[in-house]
Amino acid sequence: MKLMEERIRKDGIIEDGDVLKVGMFLNQQIDVCFISELAKEFYRLYKDAGINKILTIEASGIGLACICAIPFDVPVVFAKKSKSNNMTGEVYSSNVHSFTHGTDHAAVIPKAMLGPNDRVLLIDDFLARGQALHGLIDLCEQAGATIVGAGVFVEKTYQKGGEEIRARGVRVESLAKIKSMSVEEGIVFI
Amino acid sequence: MKLMEERIRKDGIIEDGDVLKVGMFLNQQIDVCFISELAKEFYRLYKDAGINKILTIEASGIGLACICAIPFDVPVVFAKKSKSNNMTGEVYSSNVHSFTHGTDHAAVIPKAMLGPNDRVLLIDDFLARGQALHGLIDLCEQAGATIVGAGVFVEKTYQKGGEEIRARGVRVESLAKIKSMSVEEGIVFI
Repeated sequence: MKLMEERIRKDGIIEDGDVLKVGMFLNQQIDVCFISELAKEFYRLYKDAGINKILTIEASGIGLACICAIPFDVPVVFAKKSKSNNMTGEVYSSNVHSFTHGTDHAAVIPKAMLGPNDRVLLIDDFLARGQALHGLIDLCEQAGATIVGAGVFVEKTYQKGGEEIRARGVRVESLAKIKSMSVEEGIVFI
Repeated sequence: MKLMEERIRKDGIIEDGDVLKVGMFLNQQIDVCFISELAKEFYRLYKDAGINKILTIEASGIGLACICAIPFDVPVVFAKKSKSNNMTGEVYSSNVHSFTHGTDHAAVIPKAMLGPNDRVLLIDDFLARGQALHGLIDLCEQAGATIVGAGVFVEKTYQKGGEEIRARGVRVESLAKIKSMSVEEGIVFI
């Protein structure tokens, strides 16, 4: 999607260690007007899929998911990150490994917030190794919810996450697909 | 505001220890359509105040702030919670005490995201002892930003936060004001 690619070229900052910083418009500062335009694209792609809930993970997914929920007119649920994977009777819980931080945490949702009647769109900012999306898919499977698909703002296709998630049978739509990225060479989109 | 009070009566759960759980529509599950209606009220109250940025704190404030930003057509910035108050040259940082969790953390914003040209609306879900809002006000003062006011979804007026914030000269608008609350007696709104 040109709109997203142009914004990443303009305001994204590439750093050593395969880091793309988009905090000025997508993460810690959220350009709500711009994200609203991107939300229309997800709506165009998924409007006939009968979605009744959007699921994401804290923290950077929450704002994006809420803006995307507006054209769909559906609620958002976010998985909370917890240090321990304490599976009680009250919650669904899945372990998520962060390659960025070298840590593990649990993604947790109260059972009352997700169930077999839900048709879920997963929203997240980045798809690289896919750990967050794998965790959200696990939560949906535990709840018996139907996963309609995933909407991702930036996918790094040179990492395996997208391939793996699609191999699980989940439709993935990414607004920008990065084929390669380096401080020296810049970004190449697919 | 009747709309908010009715929803709290319908879906809020009072628990021992002065806890009001609104996770089914305001926090972990966000009723985006409902919050969009509440956002119109904040817009009515603040539309002539020249706001150009909305500021909140992770995690529960992010979704609400993004939905509220839509009628104002302004970006959202959220303060990240960090374990340590490491004030580097790159960020503004303020200590925030959580009475709920009995812990301290730093609220942190990169300097590039807040400055003297900003006219800021603070958004948060709850105002009780006011620690989060005090922290956000400190960040604005460090940045030289103008605080136009605060928009709060639920204020517990029997705690001192609202009084203190107003005594600092900050306009506070709360959609629901709780005068008293207990498991036995229920909620009394002002």
